[in-house]
Amino acid sequence: MKRIHNKEDIVQIGLDLVLSRGFNATGVEAILKQANIPKGSFYNFFSSKEEFGLAIIDKFVAERSELFSPIFVDESLSPLERIRKSFEALTADFESNDCSKGCLLGNLGQEMSDHFENVRLRLEQSLQNWQSGLFQLLLQAQKEHAIPADIDAKMLAENLIASAQGALLRSKVKKSSAPLRNFIHFYFDIFLARKEE
Amino acid sequence: MKRIHNKEDIVQIGLDLVLSRGFNATGVEAILKQANIPKGSFYNFFSSKEEFGLAIIDKFVAERSELFSPIFVDESLSPLERIRKSFEALTADFESNDCSKGCLLGNLGQEMSDHFENVRLRLEQSLQNWQSGLFQLLLQAQKEHAIPADIDAKMLAENLIASAQGALLRSKVKKSSAPLRNFIHFYFDIFLARKEE
Repeated sequence: MKRIHNKEDIVQIGLDLVLSRGFNATGVEAILKQANIPKGSFYNFFSSKEEFGLAIIDKFVAERSELFSPIFVDESLSPLERIRKSFEALTADFESNDCSKGCLLGNLGQEMSDHFENVRLRLEQSLQNWQSGLFQLLLQAQKEHAIPADIDAKMLAENLIASAQGALLRSKVKKSSAPLRNFIHFYFDIFLARKEE
Repeated sequence: MKRIHNKEDIVQIGLDLVLSRGFNATGVEAILKQANIPKGSFYNFFSSKEEFGLAIIDKFVAERSELFSPIFVDESLSPLERIRKSFEALTADFESNDCSKGCLLGNLGQEMSDHFENVRLRLEQSLQNWQSGLFQLLLQAQKEHAIPADIDAKMLAENLIASAQGALLRSKVKKSSAPLRNFIHFYFDIFLARKEE
């Protein structure tokens, strides 16, 4: 078995385990066993399991950013098309995991927001960063008259992500990506589609 | 301390604990301690913790049904107004819990769908029952031309509940009901509001 000493490897293994099992159900020992490192090492890298939680959030956000960033700057697409495509990429990622796991921000938000204030704050910040990305695109869509000028783009950015998280959760229970695809259909083909076209 | 022997009391206490802490973080011992009953008793009532999970889902659904049923049949309101009011009631309930806990169906969906197939199926059934209630109201709204005839009412019912769950999750992370109120605003004042009015 390969021996791993690297903090980054522990974070990667831990992220996968927490995505599969949840935070509370993932023991430090399971992570160490999977990483094949002695027990004491965990606390060389993390002062607490909560600090480990923050590290896997940052890792997850970095991975999502790698997925979304090229889409958000793709000038061959309109701003709304870029947002749509980013949710399609999220859906494809979910499908590639057999409609399980879901989004770490949603999973930990559900499981930890009420009890781990540092985790909650990190999740809030990560969600706000994601919202900022969509907000810029929505502002551009408004300039191009693709969505009505009187919609609050900041609120819409938050609502889009929240609804995507809800659709992801529904898809996880249904073990089908249909609710995610319905979310994309409703928002981009109906709710935000210009009626006068 | 009051001594509780009743299965229903264990379910009520267990539901509160699981809503607060999550399923995996709630040990059988904590439930029994809170209920002040000896350890063995739990397994007189439930063959497993998973069976207990099913019982708290049914309890939660019964409570939500008590909250929603009078609203769904309130003929002084239009069908869409009834749906809106049911989500406002859910929001008020969330606010009364200091923007914590959330919806058991969402919480367990997130935490258990990938590992407890019986729980997943019970959640799926509970969500479908909720959807059926909204579907009937949406059909009525379509008959009254309050929403376009070409919208798939079944898909919309699923999407409404999924988006509400997502907004609830976002509100839980934000510790503010603003995302829930935004969800209501977007769906009922903008997305589903007739443009020609």
